[in-house]
Amino acid sequence: MIATELHPAVKPVAFLLGTWRGEGQGQYPTIEPFRYREEIRFSHNGKPFLIYTQRTEAIDTGQPMHGEAGYLRLVGEGRVEFVIAQPIGFAEISLGRVDGQRVDVECASVGRTPTAKRVSSISRSLWLDGDTLRYELKMGMEGVPLARHLVANLQRAD
Amino acid sequence: MIATELHPAVKPVAFLLGTWRGEGQGQYPTIEPFRYREEIRFSHNGKPFLIYTQRTEAIDTGQPMHGEAGYLRLVGEGRVEFVIAQPIGFAEISLGRVDGQRVDVECASVGRTPTAKRVSSISRSLWLDGDTLRYELKMGMEGVPLARHLVANLQRAD
Repeated sequence: MIATELHPAVKPVAFLLGTWRGEGQGQYPTIEPFRYREEIRFSHNGKPFLIYTQRTEAIDTGQPMHGEAGYLRLVGEGRVEFVIAQPIGFAEISLGRVDGQRVDVECASVGRTPTAKRVSSISRSLWLDGDTLRYELKMGMEGVPLARHLVANLQRAD
Repeated sequence: MIATELHPAVKPVAFLLGTWRGEGQGQYPTIEPFRYREEIRFSHNGKPFLIYTQRTEAIDTGQPMHGEAGYLRLVGEGRVEFVIAQPIGFAEISLGRVDGQRVDVECASVGRTPTAKRVSSISRSLWLDGDTLRYELKMGMEGVPLARHLVANLQRAD
């Protein structure tokens, strides 16, 4: 990889760039609450999007839990498009806005493989609170309206 | 990351594991042919899927071209589900089979952001030919039926 200048379109979300580590909490009407350790990375290659990867692991054993990967596209006038693949069989297209040091998106479509759980909607907010990157993810499934699922607090690791 | 044993479900596609580098050629009815340098990585974390990342760059300048990321899920009896996010605004759900040292998938759905090109279908084949990983990708767009778009030959780099 060659060192590359940040694309001007990406400047509104430059606050996300880097590797972030911390802990999060999960809950959902159908499951027991749980905690996890997390790493999120936003990088760039000079094009008008950020490259996003995320993974979580069990706090006690370090066993991998979730992971996802995708791209946060900046498409003008503060609008963002978040394309995310999830190993549980989802391909998510989410649309929203960046406003100051906060990004809010809601899914416009969720592609699902035949064996995936019946997730029907996802909303995501990420925001910088001082030096802490916080996010909240809400999820709706068939039979369960949009409900809080994940919240986490992460610190910049590089 | 802790060292992790391969999930038994993943054994049929273990031949893909590793980092692969090589060159490819692109063509399409609407564009001039082009060549590119490529790196593909398949890794695992002990769960029944492979983690997939890919990136290409210009052969002469090293400038980043395409990239994509996703997960190849093994769901039993040789069936695979390939979930891929693309920074050009696609979220792809492709379904198919592994047969020997060959994987063939066709997209079941393509989620698109409002600003994405009007890709309507993608088919992918990856196969091991001696020590060479080869793939072919066909793509259909609105107004263009499924046509050969990319072919590449890659060697294992680690």
